[in-house]
Amino acid sequence: MKERDSESFESHSQVLPNTSNSAQMIQMAMANSGSSAAAPAGHHDQLDRSKWLLDCPEPPSTWHELKSQVKESFHTKAKKFKSLRKQPLPKRILSTLQAVFPIFSWCRNYKLAMFKNDLMAGLTLASLCIPQSIGYATLAKLDPQYGLYSSVVPPLIYALMGTSREIAIGPVAVVSLLISSMLQKLIDPETDPLGYKKLVLTTTFFAGIFQASFGIFRLGFLVDFLSHAAIVGFMGGAAIVIGLQQLKGLLGITNFTTNTDIVSVLRAVWRSCQQQWSPHTFILGCSFLSFILITRFIGKKNKKLFWLPAIAPLIAVVVSTLMVFLTKADEHGVKTVKHIKGGLNPISIHDLEFNTPHLGQIAKIALIVAVVALTEAIAVGRSFAGIKGYRLDGNKEMVAIGFMNVIGSFTSCYAATGSFSRTAVNFAAGCETAMSNIVMAVTVFVALECLTRLLYYTPIAILASIILSALPGLIDINEAIHIWKIDKFDFLALIGAFFGVLFASVEIGLLVAVVISFAKIILISIRPGIETLGRMPGTDVFADTDQYPMSVKTPGVLIFRVKSALLCFANASFIEERIMGWVNEEEEDEYTKSNTTKRNVLFVVLDMSNLINVDTSGITALVELHNNLIQNGVELVIVNPKWQVIHKLNQAKFVDKIGGKVYLTIGEALDACFGLKV
Amino acid sequence: MKERDSESFESHSQVLPNTSNSAQMIQMAMANSGSSAAAPAGHHDQLDRSKWLLDCPEPPSTWHELKSQVKESFHTKAKKFKSLRKQPLPKRILSTLQAVFPIFSWCRNYKLAMFKNDLMAGLTLASLCIPQSIGYATLAKLDPQYGLYSSVVPPLIYALMGTSREIAIGPVAVVSLLISSMLQKLIDPETDPLGYKKLVLTTTFFAGIFQASFGIFRLGFLVDFLSHAAIVGFMGGAAIVIGLQQLKGLLGITNFTTNTDIVSVLRAVWRSCQQQWSPHTFILGCSFLSFILITRFIGKKNKKLFWLPAIAPLIAVVVSTLMVFLTKADEHGVKTVKHIKGGLNPISIHDLEFNTPHLGQIAKIALIVAVVALTEAIAVGRSFAGIKGYRLDGNKEMVAIGFMNVIGSFTSCYAATGSFSRTAVNFAAGCETAMSNIVMAVTVFVALECLTRLLYYTPIAILASIILSALPGLIDINEAIHIWKIDKFDFLALIGAFFGVLFASVEIGLLVAVVISFAKIILISIRPGIETLGRMPGTDVFADTDQYPMSVKTPGVLIFRVKSALLCFANASFIEERIMGWVNEEEEDEYTKSNTTKRNVLFVVLDMSNLINVDTSGITALVELHNNLIQNGVELVIVNPKWQVIHKLNQAKFVDKIGGKVYLTIGEALDACFGLKV
Repeated sequence: MKERDSESFESHSQVLPNTSNSAQMIQMAMANSGSSAAAPAGHHDQLDRSKWLLDCPEPPSTWHELKSQVKESFHTKAKKFKSLRKQPLPKRILSTLQAVFPIFSWCRNYKLAMFKNDLMAGLTLASLCIPQSIGYATLAKLDPQYGLYSSVVPPLIYALMGTSREIAIGPVAVVSLLISSMLQKLIDPETDPLGYKKLVLTTTFFAGIFQASFGIFRLGFLVDFLSHAAIVGFMGGAAIVIGLQQLKGLLGITNFTTNTDIVSVLRAVWRSCQQQWSPHTFILGCSFLSFILITRFIGKKNKKLFWLPAIAPLIAVVVSTLMVFLTKADEHGVKTVKHIKGGLNPISIHDLEFNTPHLGQIAKIALIVAVVALTEAIAVGRSFAGIKGYRLDGNKEMVAIGFMNVIGSFTSCYAATGSFSRTAVNFAAGCETAMSNIVMAVTVFVALECLTRLLYYTPIAILASIILSALPGLIDINEAIHIWKIDKFDFLALIGAFFGVLFASVEIGLLVAVVISFAKIILISIRPGIETLGRMPGTDVFADTDQYPMSVKTPGVLIFRVKSALLCFANASFIEERIMGWVNEEEEDEYTKSNTTKRNVLFVVLDMSNLINVDTSGITALVELHNNLIQNGVELVIVNPKWQVIHKLNQAKFVDKIGGKVYLTIGEALDACFGLKV
Repeated sequence: MKERDSESFESHSQVLPNTSNSAQMIQMAMANSGSSAAAPAGHHDQLDRSKWLLDCPEPPSTWHELKSQVKESFHTKAKKFKSLRKQPLPKRILSTLQAVFPIFSWCRNYKLAMFKNDLMAGLTLASLCIPQSIGYATLAKLDPQYGLYSSVVPPLIYALMGTSREIAIGPVAVVSLLISSMLQKLIDPETDPLGYKKLVLTTTFFAGIFQASFGIFRLGFLVDFLSHAAIVGFMGGAAIVIGLQQLKGLLGITNFTTNTDIVSVLRAVWRSCQQQWSPHTFILGCSFLSFILITRFIGKKNKKLFWLPAIAPLIAVVVSTLMVFLTKADEHGVKTVKHIKGGLNPISIHDLEFNTPHLGQIAKIALIVAVVALTEAIAVGRSFAGIKGYRLDGNKEMVAIGFMNVIGSFTSCYAATGSFSRTAVNFAAGCETAMSNIVMAVTVFVALECLTRLLYYTPIAILASIILSALPGLIDINEAIHIWKIDKFDFLALIGAFFGVLFASVEIGLLVAVVISFAKIILISIRPGIETLGRMPGTDVFADTDQYPMSVKTPGVLIFRVKSALLCFANASFIEERIMGWVNEEEEDEYTKSNTTKRNVLFVVLDMSNLINVDTSGITALVELHNNLIQNGVELVIVNPKWQVIHKLNQAKFVDKIGGKVYLTIGEALDACFGLKV
């Protein structure tokens, strides 16, 4: 082990200008250590190192740290801007354009072969997107065409500004559910569809503003507040809620509840089933649902047939529409889509309402929509970028999605984002760049111009079955099992979100998940574990005696390490009491064993290498601990306090109080202690 | 350093039965390391240690940990109970009695000399307590006698059950303010004094129940939620608010606001001053206030005259009452106390109301009162116990204070706790045990029986000046400066509590303080700093290169340590991005410097010794980090993951993904890396 030390030091240390100096010093120290009477030199070394610790430069102040954090956030941007200023004007403009619109970077290398792939992917995407968009629009309680509008403008904007190559942009199920479940409490879409539509557009506008500002002000971490586990639980719950909502369409029920929780919905379904429901509709919906699910099963078994599940919904729409048209089933109770307004997205900038009394509510809902939409888009974007091996710029993504929603709200689109299911299809279809989004948008646009009249006889049950068929992709049971295995607390957040969405409401589910996630962080700080450390045989490393049963305790010394990053008001007196309790226990044990009054514990060594910071309550607790230990004839020794910690302990004169017994490593502390005692 | 290693190992390791074994092993290893060709042995050692790490026993499950936490809380109790069961019955009963009523422990050794001291202290205390209690009762908007009642029963109960020897029990300023400011919003004490009284007693009852259950269920940490800094700020703000309330009495104003914030109060004072105020009252109050403050100044200068400031309030009451009686000033606008109902505490058990519609509100207010009262009592008790060198049992204290308030609520007492100012007087007067509380209670009881009629002419302005004179003790500017110097974030909590109390309300002030305190814990977890580590010259210790400028970086390797106890959803992607940013920067720097394509960074070593736990988001981020680094031709190495962390990384198969590159120390990791590469 010694040999390794010197070897590794020599091999890695010839780096900095001052290395030769220190290398000499160490060689001298090593030469000394050869003789057996080298204790003074060793002692000198130790003093030196304690001095390093005590004389370390002042840590950056709180303000300074805050400033540098903000600076660091904008660091890369500023750096790029600096290097830009040296270049000639045309290049500067191009660089700026490329930074804001990544399309200018990749379109220069764009080749025909790539376009062929993108064209195929885009067309596949469109065939899935058209029926889904119509379905999601009805889920959002909007007219069907709004779903199609939202599949035209946002994908185009995203293709200009986004950095992901796979994300398929458009309306998604969860956001549609969020919008309808929260906004219909403000205005009833049945009685005042125009007011409701304005509300949705205004919410979309604000959501876009929020999203873009998250990106611009580098607030992307707000999206992180929804942990992965919480998202899994939330998506699962939302999928079931969405599925329950589709029972209305599938059963052909007219009167339905506006609540989204499972109890209200099942009660409404039960009540309706006893009065009026349409068996024709139900059979029609179920048979096409089976058809779509079977094609998906085939697609999974045979990867080459990936396009089959992708175009199955379109086939279902075409076939069912024909069937209804030919059998005149719409006259026998099968509800159809009826009129869809065709043509390009109408301008809706005058529909945005800023003088409504609901503005505060709208802002709150927009914030939730913004976060959920971003979470979905970034999660899906990241996972596919990971597969293809490139990095997604989270902040740029947020700006792109924000802008696409702001401009979307000007052109009759409601909140769009990256869709889980369609992105997977896009990837499977072999898309190369965001061009597939452009192809899809153009196709949807053509459909809006020419084909909307053909959808008159499309049964609503088919839309319901298309939405239903997309839901299993949102329920990730394997991931839930994985989370259960790895982290029980994460699973609690998952379950909290799941049941919150299912039995209360979408917002409550999100709130429960966020609260549980943060409760964990706080809990770990409030009730930290405390390790007792022992020496690992053959090394100078001290480690948790529970984790490493082979580690050896040193007699007369208790070595503790607190499993927390903070010694603060919330845990200081707890830690103090626990340590005192252990010391007393150890003393008592010894007393009962030997029946002598000889002290068993002489030193308590507190390894502070974990601690990032300490507050005034923490220092007070340390002082009390020191006083109590002294009363018991035990000395307190401190090891490896970090920058902020040693600085504060110095300022509070705690280091003087414990007689300067502060060491860099536990080994040195033990040597010093026993050197002094013996 | 080598020398130290072997020496320290030999001197400390003869402990456990297996030590001799391991010592032999190490001696062999050391003998080997003497030769220069010992690399295989060293390598073998390392493999061994990595195996220790990877094969460590399974950490306790979440449920198990929770269980053991709860068990540990009740540990000492259970242990005591066990050892008790072995003893004969009479001794068992005595032990139980002593555990519940500490008075049975100390009264057996109680001596006459101690009683003399306690008698003096108790009488001094009573002379201060009687005027203060009357004043605080008016602050709580109750009749004066309720203050006196609260100085009879609670101190007696506390003397039986409490463990502190110095605490002086009775009504205190802050709790009185809390009660009146929050309860008068439910029932106006002017229009319905009886209903208000019932409300106060019910609140006291619930506060006592809360306090006792905190103690019984070991929930003492709830009191810790108010950090020391928050208490300093809160007390300072409350003192100013209380002082402003006293302006009513001091100026002889009739119409006053019920709000407690500084703006409302000053406006009310301003309005009243223009209409009606009593200059006589003001002069009387101010002159006696000056008298009390001067005696305090004398008491501080000459420690022997400590009794002078303690009895000054009583002198002020006697003299001013005589003055008013003789000059008939009460007929000239000087308001007096008028009738005080004498006699022993009436039973008030039938006054407790559980069927009121305010029950929820009462419970909330009682919780706040309970926490604030406990905070004050335990803070003051701990600090004096620290001076005398004994430990206060926090949970026992809570039970004692809880019981005294429950029984107090049955006997017309409102919430009592340990008073800052009177405890200091008790200590200065040389109290020995809780007997001084009994003496005080008996004295107050005698006063209630005989002297209440004499207080008829006591001017209210004198009560105001007595309260005002007690306030400076609550404003601790030195401590505020100390906190500012040591911890800026703590100071923010202080200032938040201070201004919250001053400008909003007492509850808002408390809420602000708690929120700021917890925000700090969360903030450190969300945006953790990341250290780069370097080798400390002459050691195998790696430390923060910023803290230790003499530390030496190893070329080709970036060593990071995250300054957080958790790698979780809230910080995982932030950490991943920061590390990738640094790696790219390092590469770019090298590129611009040398203009070659040679890679600068070969390894990223992630020192996990800080991390207590990791969640699924954290593991996902590690996987992404690993993938991204591999794309850049950099390898990820992990060092010293803790128990929970290595267990989860194993379960998630992350260790396999990085090719088992997990080491116990950074030194070993570097050796292994370069050993493999070279």
